[in-house]
Amino acid sequence: MKAAVLYAPYDVRIDERADPKIEQPTDALIRMSATCVCGSDLWPYRGENPIKGPTTMGHEYCGIVEEIGGAVKSVKPGQFVVGSFATSDNTCPNCRYGYQSSCIHREWMTMAQAPVLRVPLADGTLVPTPGVPSNDLVPSLLATSDVLGTGWFAADAANVKSGSTVVVVGDGAVGLLGVLSAKQMGAERIIAMSRHEKRQTLAREFGATDLVTERGDEGAKRVLDMTKGIGADSVLECVGTQESMTQAIQATRKGGYVSYVGVPHGVEFKGEELFYTHVHLHGGPAPVRRYLPKLIDLVLSRTINPGKVFDLTLPLEEVAEGYRAMDARRAIKALLRP
Amino acid sequence: MKAAVLYAPYDVRIDERADPKIEQPTDALIRMSATCVCGSDLWPYRGENPIKGPTTMGHEYCGIVEEIGGAVKSVKPGQFVVGSFATSDNTCPNCRYGYQSSCIHREWMTMAQAPVLRVPLADGTLVPTPGVPSNDLVPSLLATSDVLGTGWFAADAANVKSGSTVVVVGDGAVGLLGVLSAKQMGAERIIAMSRHEKRQTLAREFGATDLVTERGDEGAKRVLDMTKGIGADSVLECVGTQESMTQAIQATRKGGYVSYVGVPHGVEFKGEELFYTHVHLHGGPAPVRRYLPKLIDLVLSRTINPGKVFDLTLPLEEVAEGYRAMDARRAIKALLRP
Repeated sequence: MKAAVLYAPYDVRIDERADPKIEQPTDALIRMSATCVCGSDLWPYRGENPIKGPTTMGHEYCGIVEEIGGAVKSVKPGQFVVGSFATSDNTCPNCRYGYQSSCIHREWMTMAQAPVLRVPLADGTLVPTPGVPSNDLVPSLLATSDVLGTGWFAADAANVKSGSTVVVVGDGAVGLLGVLSAKQMGAERIIAMSRHEKRQTLAREFGATDLVTERGDEGAKRVLDMTKGIGADSVLECVGTQESMTQAIQATRKGGYVSYVGVPHGVEFKGEELFYTHVHLHGGPAPVRRYLPKLIDLVLSRTINPGKVFDLTLPLEEVAEGYRAMDARRAIKALLRP
Repeated sequence: MKAAVLYAPYDVRIDERADPKIEQPTDALIRMSATCVCGSDLWPYRGENPIKGPTTMGHEYCGIVEEIGGAVKSVKPGQFVVGSFATSDNTCPNCRYGYQSSCIHREWMTMAQAPVLRVPLADGTLVPTPGVPSNDLVPSLLATSDVLGTGWFAADAANVKSGSTVVVVGDGAVGLLGVLSAKQMGAERIIAMSRHEKRQTLAREFGATDLVTERGDEGAKRVLDMTKGIGADSVLECVGTQESMTQAIQATRKGGYVSYVGVPHGVEFKGEELFYTHVHLHGGPAPVRRYLPKLIDLVLSRTINPGKVFDLTLPLEEVAEGYRAMDARRAIKALLRP
């Protein structure tokens, strides 16, 4: 089959790879309805994460079950399913505590930019929809697989509640869906930090009440000015750099909550500085599986439309253009049709 | 009056200082029933915090109100009161969120190892007892002023709940009262990390169900062994060093809670490492004022006896011996009678 492979920084190609097969009795094979490029794919694409030789790409997926291993019980061929970017047995202690992305049997999905995907631990990873959903819902269902699940975790980990004042640092697809999630959780005020017109518009549409274009110390100062000098209850750090993390912490009120959901790159917290901020800090790879049933319901009932973050749709063969467009911030997120 | 003054590392003396006076209409003067030496006093005593010339010491206190400023309404002369090591107006937004130790008008108390103490923002800082308590309760009431309030915050910030498995890193007075606090909050299993026999005994008495003598990686490994490889729900970091913090995080289950309540010294968190631990992190200077009414009630009803951490009582004049004994770990905590 054809699959996206990263050869070197800025060099993504479609390459031939062996068709996936059932390897374990707990596996399922999915014929992909759609996949996409993740903001986190840009780290290796830009050479900021090292790569050792040609590497298959992609970890967001939804589609029709094609084949299952002998031990799989909860999904069957012909069903439409969504799964998380991290596999989980959904029975181990970490899973039972709601941290399926730290399942003791976790594997990271790494080959989803392709027409067929092998999903290990299918019973604990995949969630089927009640029937095959209509085509126009596919982008939003795809979004639940990672980008919405991650934005939702960002809002949840930052303790967003009814009436909260929320700041979202980062106007990538995760940040924008953090805005949508905060809105769903009842936030009263949602301050989106963005200087990009198209993203600002989508942030507004998803529920942002305020936009701040300043960054770094200036951005944090602006939030303090907007909150009577106190800071926000909940701040979602959706970038992963030292500047954005510092900005997030500075924008939070004493005793408020900071979440971080992108792999931090070069971020360090000084213990003594953090101590006097009194913030709560929580993050990590989003336990998407915890939220999938609820998020799928919200999509199927058309309560939310997270698929709007896909502003570029390409055939899988043109995956390189998807990376280029996201790298240049010409596109928020690229959906790929295998 | 006579007051404890730190001149240089390992050089604490009793020196003459001007009697405190009412300076602001919101001040109160307290005739001290008891004061004490804090584990945090040992940082400057050991030269690990720089000191600029002779510095008065002490921030834990309880006693009888002697005089109040014209604006003070909630306490009056003759009442027995306890206050926090951080003053608070108890009305600003940070206070209303329960973070009185980040009050926008906060001052740190720094002259409590003395017979009389000026307390700014008396209305928002001091809590009076219903009558003058019996003498034998004074050590426990003194403990509420910081060391118990801090241990309590450690347990609360680490989300200790009924049925929790808790680890306490550090067998100083704060750690021991973290054990007591976790017990009060309903923890099912409390693992105290201590290799010091006297402190182990007190930890057991306060509610520890298990003792671990290993430290660092070995200590964390031991906790994992005791929790089926999963880690504890809640870990209270009550030391403030990199080793103890690393040990605390390693001993926590995915999605568990780490609190830290001593000023971190040289502690750094690597963002990427913290990310994959999935822990919640919360700490800072304990908002003792939030807990004082409840803690005073627990002492007055003789439900708890936190004063047991004072295993050395000295007249104020012998304060230097109190520091020496705590520095050498001959004493857990030294109470001073002015």
